[in-house]
Amino acid sequence: LAFTERQLIAAIRRRAGTSRFPRSPARILAGIGDDCAVLRLPSRHDLLITTDFTIEGIHFRREWHSPDSAGHRCLARGLSDVAAIGGQPLAAFLSLALPRNTSPLWTQGFLGGLLRLARQFRVTLAGGDVAESLRGVVADVAVLGMVPQGTAVLRSGAKPGDKLYVTGRLGASAMTLQALRHKGKKVAQARLYRSHFFPQPRVAVGSFLRRRALASAMIDLSDGLSTDLRHICEESAVGALVQAARVPCSPGADLQQALHGGEDYELLFAAPQGARIPALIAGVRVTRIGEVLAGKGRWLLDERGRRLRLEPHGWQHFASGE
Amino acid sequence: LAFTERQLIAAIRRRAGTSRFPRSPARILAGIGDDCAVLRLPSRHDLLITTDFTIEGIHFRREWHSPDSAGHRCLARGLSDVAAIGGQPLAAFLSLALPRNTSPLWTQGFLGGLLRLARQFRVTLAGGDVAESLRGVVADVAVLGMVPQGTAVLRSGAKPGDKLYVTGRLGASAMTLQALRHKGKKVAQARLYRSHFFPQPRVAVGSFLRRRALASAMIDLSDGLSTDLRHICEESAVGALVQAARVPCSPGADLQQALHGGEDYELLFAAPQGARIPALIAGVRVTRIGEVLAGKGRWLLDERGRRLRLEPHGWQHFASGE
Repeated sequence: LAFTERQLIAAIRRRAGTSRFPRSPARILAGIGDDCAVLRLPSRHDLLITTDFTIEGIHFRREWHSPDSAGHRCLARGLSDVAAIGGQPLAAFLSLALPRNTSPLWTQGFLGGLLRLARQFRVTLAGGDVAESLRGVVADVAVLGMVPQGTAVLRSGAKPGDKLYVTGRLGASAMTLQALRHKGKKVAQARLYRSHFFPQPRVAVGSFLRRRALASAMIDLSDGLSTDLRHICEESAVGALVQAARVPCSPGADLQQALHGGEDYELLFAAPQGARIPALIAGVRVTRIGEVLAGKGRWLLDERGRRLRLEPHGWQHFASGE
Repeated sequence: LAFTERQLIAAIRRRAGTSRFPRSPARILAGIGDDCAVLRLPSRHDLLITTDFTIEGIHFRREWHSPDSAGHRCLARGLSDVAAIGGQPLAAFLSLALPRNTSPLWTQGFLGGLLRLARQFRVTLAGGDVAESLRGVVADVAVLGMVPQGTAVLRSGAKPGDKLYVTGRLGASAMTLQALRHKGKKVAQARLYRSHFFPQPRVAVGSFLRRRALASAMIDLSDGLSTDLRHICEESAVGALVQAARVPCSPGADLQQALHGGEDYELLFAAPQGARIPALIAGVRVTRIGEVLAGKGRWLLDERGRRLRLEPHGWQHFASGE
């Protein structure tokens, strides 16, 4: 027996209630149950907003992803976007369209995964919408955050001579998808693949870099290093050189997965040459991988010292190769 | 030939650019093209956020609704929610999932309808997401608005003795859907049906009531009077009596359509007995239809003076009776 829309709203409201009004720096004056959510931010802060789709068959598969992994990843996308500005996440809004036959067990698992991550980051589920989907689960999550006025770290601030850094290790998500394609769901148990199923948005790292004014430009690695580096370069009107030998690959992942695989949710940032970037920020390893160049070219310096064009291999989620 | 995701983002960005940075009271410091939109509100304002799905086959049909009507209605839902708080809309975020075969012509028409309404209300399209949909168009629009601190008109403020009012006339949308079911698309041309295809969110009326502190509770009529009145009564812990003879039916609509039909996007509000409510606000007719009662009952006083239970006839969009 599936939830009716009214039951679904009641379930969301009941479960969100346990994580509602946490020690959030934004006051939620009205949440689920009014025409709009009403929030009061502390004064002298800028507001951040990001929205991300999570579509069954595109961003996750029911036969591969447990409901709590799907729910976790759904919110992680927006938290990672807020992290990439250096912001503090405050509230989330879940628009959830379910096929008529969706079991309440799946729905509860999905909400459980989403709300566990929300609590971890003191984010309130403050609203959204529900509807029937004609095919597959469709979720759209809006995340609201804030930064002190004028301190947002944008994609557009990189300057020639800046150094390029990434957090954590790259390629784990692409490696997991390859394993899922070949071996199916049983891989989900392996600890090796945890960062695909339950990625940890780098909110503390982004916030540290913003507070110390260390980063000139920043983005999160959702599309893959080669594509997200292009975003930074295009918005900043610069080029870049990445040293292959420096790219930190996840255990088991190869360079191609680290360069082009999406959904690692690590941060890529540029910092002026003189900036002192710690090797470890909030417990997360930070690695220098290259530098920002004048011009428009994006290059990969391979192990043999050859300079190759670094083409973005468009991350097409599950659409590619299927 | 359908748009690729990259072409779609470019089309949205190009078209939104023409309506970007209008004379909006919120400064958009970063919009489409960064990880988050960054907004600065004037000081001493509360923030409003609402999100609404628009799903093909549920909220519109391609054989009934022109692309610009679908785009218009998609944004109108959120603007109407902001109106129901008494707020000023500032920015919109469009998450748009399109089936692979969607023609650029349809997409451009949809964006055109949405952006024309955005310009009318000086709302900036400041971000969103795009994805592939496995079936039908799925849009989710988040609208951001604001009110001066502490002035939001919620659903929860109605008191026994308050009078109940609605704006405009009711039932036109239900009447249009019935005509579409019987006669198909040709009705779309008739001027009579315009308020279904291009509803006008009552932003000026809501704002007037909020500025003058005239309304104790307010909601927009998206689910239908009988259901939305229940929302106000539940959130305010009160009952209500509606006088059938006073309900303003749209030309051609009957009382049942006016009471239970959804998507009229008029406002329903309560005001203390002494409040002087103009008969016309911002050019829109305002009608007293009943009063707020103690207790939990919701009643309809029919033409013969009988007191009947006013049951919510759940508005199920196009799902009902199909």
